[in-house]
Amino acid sequence: LLTEAHRDRFSVVLVSPRNPLNIGAAARAMANFGFSHLAVVAPYEAHWREAKSAVGAEKLLQDARTTQSLSEAVADCTLVIGTGALSRRRPEQTAVSLPALAPLLARELARGGRMALVFGPEKRGLTREDLVLCHLLVEIPTDARQPSMNLGQAVAVCLYELASRLHLPEDATPAIIAGAGSHVEQQAHLAPSDDTPPAASGNLDLLAGVIDKVMLAAAYSPAKMREANRHDLRLLLRRLALSEDDARRILGFFRRVLRRLEP
Amino acid sequence: LLTEAHRDRFSVVLVSPRNPLNIGAAARAMANFGFSHLAVVAPYEAHWREAKSAVGAEKLLQDARTTQSLSEAVADCTLVIGTGALSRRRPEQTAVSLPALAPLLARELARGGRMALVFGPEKRGLTREDLVLCHLLVEIPTDARQPSMNLGQAVAVCLYELASRLHLPEDATPAIIAGAGSHVEQQAHLAPSDDTPPAASGNLDLLAGVIDKVMLAAAYSPAKMREANRHDLRLLLRRLALSEDDARRILGFFRRVLRRLEP
Repeated sequence: LLTEAHRDRFSVVLVSPRNPLNIGAAARAMANFGFSHLAVVAPYEAHWREAKSAVGAEKLLQDARTTQSLSEAVADCTLVIGTGALSRRRPEQTAVSLPALAPLLARELARGGRMALVFGPEKRGLTREDLVLCHLLVEIPTDARQPSMNLGQAVAVCLYELASRLHLPEDATPAIIAGAGSHVEQQAHLAPSDDTPPAASGNLDLLAGVIDKVMLAAAYSPAKMREANRHDLRLLLRRLALSEDDARRILGFFRRVLRRLEP
Repeated sequence: LLTEAHRDRFSVVLVSPRNPLNIGAAARAMANFGFSHLAVVAPYEAHWREAKSAVGAEKLLQDARTTQSLSEAVADCTLVIGTGALSRRRPEQTAVSLPALAPLLARELARGGRMALVFGPEKRGLTREDLVLCHLLVEIPTDARQPSMNLGQAVAVCLYELASRLHLPEDATPAIIAGAGSHVEQQAHLAPSDDTPPAASGNLDLLAGVIDKVMLAAAYSPAKMREANRHDLRLLLRRLALSEDDARRILGFFRRVLRRLEP
């Protein structure tokens, strides 16, 4: 199962959590399952202070990183996993059910990746803008009559699943591979079989920024399509599962293109 | 996976829960994973009222049974599963880790049993007296540095595990059997291979009561051993995994013995 060093490559990211009790509960679940990196994006200041100063607050709350954007919080991650009930909308990237997640992460772990598990605000969940930064979406299989889980409980369930079912490929038993079923096949492209290090989320943002400029300089998008094309580009870049090398090479290429387009 | 009819044979039992928020969270998790039978044992009245009247409280809280003792709450159950961190004491009955639980319950479900998942009070967990009513103990595998889980989160994790990994034997995949490892072998006696209906917890209590009287009438126990022997008897009766028929026959036998001993 997961070693300390493996758990060290996971972050839990809470986007604008509202209820201090939920923040505390998320931190408690992390401590219960041996995870220690918490990042909080654009917290409501008063609620965040209250959560940190609660009696019995976990030490990892004191050590948590706060950032203004999700993009910053996951900049060093190579696989960003968004959570939530997906029934409301058709997801724009691949979605798996939580019991099928472990094998995908095992491959990412084996190739040296860093992972973030991202949870949205209590009421509305992750926005379309948050989701575009995710390589993969995961859904906890809940009852259709009451699909929406409490934040602290959702974090506990996800971390329990990872702590108890995530094996590295070397020690993966047939049980794990079989358990994930066809999702694994569909997802194979998320982790190229070669073991070059994957591109971090921050590098993909950099690349997307340059390509945006190229699209603009080349007058690629009609004005009213600009936002939609920008959104699709970000999804595409994550779908490609670029290696670090590939991302750097493509960035160099587009920078050259951009210099030629902008006189 | 579990049908509605299967879930209908599960109860969640909270023993003297203290925090209304935790009671609400337990009910929420039940609704999330499609379970509906909640029993609350000896609740603190004010906290219980507060939990039931909370805004957004689940309907299943209104429908919950309250009993004065755990014995009453599980009287109709054929397999009673105690939860908790077992590291503090050496368990007196078989204990399994949560990821290994599903195959044991699948067999009980197949033979028509009713199951209860029992959670103790927030601070101290289940007492020795509660545990003696349990056929089986289950532990959520947590980090040794922070083993103790929040009640609402523990309920969520247990129900997620059952909802997503419990298959009936007919549709059990090799993955499930293999996943449980050696625990399954050790536990085989919990579910006799014949499919006679298992004895309910209330019948075992009845039987234990009569055998107690026989022990007393036969002056079996020295006075200072009486309590310990009574405790061991209750553990033994659950370990035997008696069928309904067996339990009735043994009860008849001991009643006859008792009549002969008490002139």
